[in-house]
Amino acid sequence: MAAWGQRLAGVRGVLLDVSGVLFDGAEGSGVPIAGSVEAVARLKRSRLKVRFCTNESQKSLGDLVRLLQQLGFDISEGEVTAPAPATCLILKERGLRPYLLIHDGIRSEFDQIDTSNPNCVVIADAGESFSYQNMNKAFQVLMELENPVLISLGKGRYYKETSGLMLDVGAYVKALEYACGIEAEVVGKPSPEYFKSALQEMGLEAHQAVMIGDDIVGDVGGAQQCGMRALQVRTGKFRKISPEFTASPPLFC
Amino acid sequence: MAAWGQRLAGVRGVLLDVSGVLFDGAEGSGVPIAGSVEAVARLKRSRLKVRFCTNESQKSLGDLVRLLQQLGFDISEGEVTAPAPATCLILKERGLRPYLLIHDGIRSEFDQIDTSNPNCVVIADAGESFSYQNMNKAFQVLMELENPVLISLGKGRYYKETSGLMLDVGAYVKALEYACGIEAEVVGKPSPEYFKSALQEMGLEAHQAVMIGDDIVGDVGGAQQCGMRALQVRTGKFRKISPEFTASPPLFC
Repeated sequence: MAAWGQRLAGVRGVLLDVSGVLFDGAEGSGVPIAGSVEAVARLKRSRLKVRFCTNESQKSLGDLVRLLQQLGFDISEGEVTAPAPATCLILKERGLRPYLLIHDGIRSEFDQIDTSNPNCVVIADAGESFSYQNMNKAFQVLMELENPVLISLGKGRYYKETSGLMLDVGAYVKALEYACGIEAEVVGKPSPEYFKSALQEMGLEAHQAVMIGDDIVGDVGGAQQCGMRALQVRTGKFRKISPEFTASPPLFC
Repeated sequence: MAAWGQRLAGVRGVLLDVSGVLFDGAEGSGVPIAGSVEAVARLKRSRLKVRFCTNESQKSLGDLVRLLQQLGFDISEGEVTAPAPATCLILKERGLRPYLLIHDGIRSEFDQIDTSNPNCVVIADAGESFSYQNMNKAFQVLMELENPVLISLGKGRYYKETSGLMLDVGAYVKALEYACGIEAEVVGKPSPEYFKSALQEMGLEAHQAVMIGDDIVGDVGGAQQCGMRALQVRTGKFRKISPEFTASPPLFC
C-alpha cells in the first residue's frame, strides 16, 4: 500500500479508457468488465476528478453513452473525450471535405460536414465497411490529391470484443500510408492534443493525472509522453508486456 | 544510340514484367499496351533470352498465360516466373498449413496444399476478397500462433487497371504486419530469391540481364539489388520518379 501511495502521490484526476477497461463490446451491445461499474461509482464518490477517454469510432458519442448507461455506468456525454467531435472541428477549420471511410454507426457525427468533391480522407474503425471497394475509393481519392491528407480517428492495432480480438483502424491506416507513401494525422489517443484537451476539460496538469487503459501504445505510451502517469489493466486487449512501445514501464492493475 | 549501347553492353537476357508492361488488366480480361505484342516478338527473334517475371496473384499461371496468348503475345507457361508455385514449394518444405487470404482465381494453384488447422497465413492480391471478415480471420490465425508466419506473394503498393489505380497486396500486408507486430516473408519481386530463380532458369548471371518493369520498388529496386540493370517503362502504374526507393536511378524507356 505504501508503494501505491507513493506511485500515485499528487494525483487529482483519473482518465479512464472505455472499451476493454469498462466493458467488452459485442455485436451492437456489450458486457461490463467485472467490478468496473462499482469502480467508476467509487471514483466518482472520491475527491478525484474523472474523465472518460475513448477512441470509440464505430458509435456516435450519444450511442456510446446510452449503451454505457444501460450497462449500469454513471456517465454523461459531457464527461467523455472522443475523437469524432475533434475531427469535425479540424475539418471545418481547414476547409477540408472528407471522403468518410467510417462505420455507419458514427456517420451522424459528420452530418454538418461537406463531403462533396473530397479533398481529404477521414478513416475510423469502419468494421465491415472496410471492404476492398471502400478502401480502394479512399486510396484513389488520396492519389488524386496534390497534397494528400489522411486523418485517422486513433491508430489502434486491435481491440477485444466478447467474440475475440478484432482488427482496429490502425491496421487500415498503415495500408493507406504504405500505398500512398504518406503519413496520417492521428486525432485521438495517442496524439498529445487528445490528452491535452482531456486535461484541460478536467482543469489539471499532466503530473496531477493518471491514465488507465488496456492499450500499451494508445493509452499508456500516449499518456506517458504527455507527462502523465499510466496504469495498464489486464482486461480487454491486454496480452503481455510490450515495453518497447513505452517510455517507461506502466504500473499494472 | 551510343549511350544505349554502352548502358546495355553485355546484356544477354531480358526479364519482362507483365502487368503494366505488356498489358493493363481489366475485369477478367485486359488490353495490350501499344507496341508490346510486337516488342515481345522482336525480342524473341533476337539473340536475347527472354523471361516473363510477374507477381500476378489473382490468376493462376495457366489463366494468365491463356489471357496473354488471347491478347496476341508469344508466351508459354514454361517461360514465366510467378510467386504461387514458389510459395507451394516453401509450404511443403516447411510443413506449413496456410490460411489462404487469396483471390478465387488463384485458388487452384493451392489444390495440393493442406489447409486444415492453419499454422501460417498466405496473402496474395485478393481483390474483393479483402473483406474485413477475411482480414480479421487472417489476423486471428496469426495472433494465436506462438511464432506467426505471414507469407506474401509480392508487396506491391498498387497496380493499374484500365479503370484506374488499384490497391495491391502490399497495403494489406502492412496492415497485418502492424496489427500483429510481425514482418512478412515476401515470395515474388522484389525478393532476391525470386530474381535468382529467374536468372537460373535463363542460365545467366545478374550482370548479363536487364529487368524491364513499371514498379520502381518491385521491379527496378529489386533487380538492382541483385546486381542486374533495370529499365522503368512509363506505362502501367508509372507516375513519377521516386529515387528514394532505388539503389541507383533506373534507365527509362
